[in-house]
Amino acid sequence: MKIPPERRIAVYPGSFDPVTYGHLDIITRAAHLFDQLYVAVLHNPAKQPTFSADERVEMLRECSAHLANVHCEQFDGLVVAYARSRGAVAIVRGLRAVSDFEAEFKMAAMNRYLDPDIETVFMMTASEYSFISSSIVKEVASFGGDVRQYVPPGVARRLAARFPISQSG
Amino acid sequence: MKIPPERRIAVYPGSFDPVTYGHLDIITRAAHLFDQLYVAVLHNPAKQPTFSADERVEMLRECSAHLANVHCEQFDGLVVAYARSRGAVAIVRGLRAVSDFEAEFKMAAMNRYLDPDIETVFMMTASEYSFISSSIVKEVASFGGDVRQYVPPGVARRLAARFPISQSG
Amino acid sequence: MKIPPERRIAVYPGSFDPVTYGHLDIITRAAHLFDQLYVAVLHNPAKQPTFSADERVEMLRECSAHLANVHCEQFDGLVVAYARSRGAVAIVRGLRAVSDFEAEFKMAAMNRYLDPDIETVFMMTASEYSFISSSIVKEVASFGGDVRQYVPPGVARRLAARFPISQSG
Amino acid sequence: MKIPPERRIAVYPGSFDPVTYGHLDIITRAAHLFDQLYVAVLHNPAKQPTFSADERVEMLRECSAHLANVHCEQFDGLVVAYARSRGAVAIVRGLRAVSDFEAEFKMAAMNRYLDPDIETVFMMTASEYSFISSSIVKEVASFGGDVRQYVPPGVARRLAARFPISQSG
Amino acid sequence: MKIPPERRIAVYPGSFDPVTYGHLDIITRAAHLFDQLYVAVLHNPAKQPTFSADERVEMLRECSAHLANVHCEQFDGLVVAYARSRGAVAIVRGLRAVSDFEAEFKMAAMNRYLDPDIETVFMMTASEYSFISSSIVKEVASFGGDVRQYVPPGVARRLAARFPISQSG
Amino acid sequence: MKIPPERRIAVYPGSFDPVTYGHLDIITRAAHLFDQLYVAVLHNPAKQPTFSADERVEMLRECSAHLANVHCEQFDGLVVAYARSRGAVAIVRGLRAVSDFEAEFKMAAMNRYLDPDIETVFMMTASEYSFISSSIVKEVASFGGDVRQYVPPGVARRLAARFPISQSG
Repeated sequence: MKIPPERRIAVYPGSFDPVTYGHLDIITRAAHLFDQLYVAVLHNPAKQPTFSADERVEMLRECSAHLANVHCEQFDGLVVAYARSRGAVAIVRGLRAVSDFEAEFKMAAMNRYLDPDIETVFMMTASEYSFISSSIVKEVASFGGDVRQYVPPGVARRLAARFPISQSG
Repeated sequence: MKIPPERRIAVYPGSFDPVTYGHLDIITRAAHLFDQLYVAVLHNPAKQPTFSADERVEMLRECSAHLANVHCEQFDGLVVAYARSRGAVAIVRGLRAVSDFEAEFKMAAMNRYLDPDIETVFMMTASEYSFISSSIVKEVASFGGDVRQYVPPGVARRLAARFPISQSG
Repeated sequence: MKIPPERRIAVYPGSFDPVTYGHLDIITRAAHLFDQLYVAVLHNPAKQPTFSADERVEMLRECSAHLANVHCEQFDGLVVAYARSRGAVAIVRGLRAVSDFEAEFKMAAMNRYLDPDIETVFMMTASEYSFISSSIVKEVASFGGDVRQYVPPGVARRLAARFPISQSG
Repeated sequence: MKIPPERRIAVYPGSFDPVTYGHLDIITRAAHLFDQLYVAVLHNPAKQPTFSADERVEMLRECSAHLANVHCEQFDGLVVAYARSRGAVAIVRGLRAVSDFEAEFKMAAMNRYLDPDIETVFMMTASEYSFISSSIVKEVASFGGDVRQYVPPGVARRLAARFPISQSG
Repeated sequence: MKIPPERRIAVYPGSFDPVTYGHLDIITRAAHLFDQLYVAVLHNPAKQPTFSADERVEMLRECSAHLANVHCEQFDGLVVAYARSRGAVAIVRGLRAVSDFEAEFKMAAMNRYLDPDIETVFMMTASEYSFISSSIVKEVASFGGDVRQYVPPGVARRLAARFPISQSG
Repeated sequence: MKIPPERRIAVYPGSFDPVTYGHLDIITRAAHLFDQLYVAVLHNPAKQPTFSADERVEMLRECSAHLANVHCEQFDGLVVAYARSRGAVAIVRGLRAVSDFEAEFKMAAMNRYLDPDIETVFMMTASEYSFISSSIVKEVASFGGDVRQYVPPGVARRLAARFPISQSG
């Protein structure tokens, strides 16, 4: 019944459009708790992301390259199906605020129903990143604001290329 | 830097006054994720619990006896100091509702400040137990209500002894 | 299976220490929805109310005297047991804010477990009373503040007697 | 002033796109509290529902056929105008979570302003359905997940037809 | 270090699509606290407002004409850049509810990061307007409902012109 | 009607038992917005503070000595009466989290009712202090934990004296 230690695999799914230091904080700490961590970009054909799934995976790989047990890739379909395909015992999610909490709770309950053997574990985003989100970062970048304190250098560079500074900001 | 698998130890601290099926749900699932799980009753001399720390540990032991990697004991002082003394990499906490969330967030942030090497991981209480708490169970028991659906048999028996039925309820 | 119309009885339990215009708003509207409404003061020997259960019932009676189908009384024990004793199909509760909501939700779930035949129905306190509570009214009155806009005249008079004005406020 | 018992009519408006067991739970209990219950699908030309208003009414009728005092139909325009047209004294709404609460509160306040004679009464969704929503059910169904525990058989069948299984899920 | 009193300038940015009595309440009170108040309509090319930025400024000017130190205009780009251009020490925001709070908090934190010299100050919307929003007002108006209690006369007139009454409402 | 600039006085009331860096952050920023700021310790005879009102004022004075327009003192009675006695146009409050928000909202609404000429303005506590409270600081200090990152040196010294280290923590 007890899972052998080498099976302590987790997945950390998300949009990561783009990855922020808030996400990287969760990745670093989850990589500390589990033997293998799969950071997985959801490829959702119904949505229009700012960066393609390939670009998002690339940015994740760049900023997590120093973490040997972290693997970045993309997936589609149900999260639990993906987690099962990787042999995961856990789905990792970051929590920042109350509004996160309820949406996450619903997803976790549905995932538990779909596969009771896979646990959702929540980790708290560090308070200095608690107000950051990919969308607020993109909004600021689109107005020429400086976001280098909140995203890795490679992401800041790509944001600058995506949103050419057209005003004095 | 990576922690050897045998060090995947977690603590699950709480009042457990008394343990409910909601707690037991978290214990069962955390025991699935970690190699060793210490369920730890906080002995707080400043509070007046319904059951003594010894009784609370005993009730926990009874209902988790079938889980080989679960250890029940009491502690006092700071949670992080206790966690460190057990070699734990994680503090497990159950989340039921928004109101839990904020208090838990504050504690997790303070614990992270006190010892950045110990992670707090949150697990979601199963929805059928999401409204149960030790205090609501005691309130119902004190009025002669039936709580057997929400606490293990040994706890129900002790509650009945503690709150002799004095009305038709 | 359908309950005969004359059985449309509801109870509205609470501390009412003392009744405010917020409570009276709920009483008035619940009396409109149900055939008979029992407004019931919880007599909790473990708590130290500002007004005795008798006084609280008296204040409720005074301000609801014009509502023919409203009956004010006290009760102890479990709310569902009391509701059953009155033949009620519903427990009425007022909601003012998010913080009310969660506590109310827990109680409603427990009451549903204890007696699935009795529904809890929530009514929204009018927005002009949404920040009023018995305790804030007492706090203001204790400092000599004017609370006549938030409690019926008989309550304001009793509050003034209970908290003699000792400062210019 | 008191409304004759035969006038205890309520409406339960919503999108019901599609109806879930969470909705059906509210329907069943509201049908117990009121003499007549109109379950009303909002026909909103500005939105793109998954199922047409006719299909949604049909699914509601199928799963509530055993409740003699429940009537399913569609409406457009203001909820209070519709409620008035049916002679209703109450608008029924289900509450699942804090995030529901605030949006519902705003609507209820606006409806009260538009017609003070019609009460909004909230009922709590059973905890086992508290995380279900039509949109999460559709998301899972679109990935080939099993939703039969959360929607009536007729709805599950229509979801399967709408979202042909294109992956092993 | 202390700012000379004549520099007590604030900006109150928003969509104001259209201005409501809730907004006007905040404008009136902020004009009382600061020497000069700039009420600023965000011109966001990516969104489709109901009223043009020019119309929104015009409605704001009409209803705040009696407040000598209030100036209405439009802006685009980052709020902090606009605030700096006006020499403001503060950004004023109204709070109505918990859901407002979190989004506002994130924006305030980002703005503080972008310019630590500009404070965000929150003022509480009067409770009688706490459930009003531009979007709920437009929804009601679009169905022919009466909104004159919640928006100034000039706004009500423009709403009626924008949403010709096409039903008995 | 416009208040002369020299009248821009504010009060910042609280328990400050003891003052934290979170409070000091609000003091510093409010001192920037107003001409004079009175930081006022509530002397509540009904409560048992950890530090006397005199000690709390002394700690506030020590850590705000560099802010020329800040005055620390104690008061009792209603906040609005105290604010009026100082000629204040505003009551300043810090907001950290959703749970703060609702209690603050109720107080602000009651204060507005008691004196409509005094505004409550909310300022956001910096995110690095968002989880700190006087009570959590005292709890940690009582177990021998290090709190120097969250309270000024004088407060840390007094906490150490109040809670002699009795364990290795």
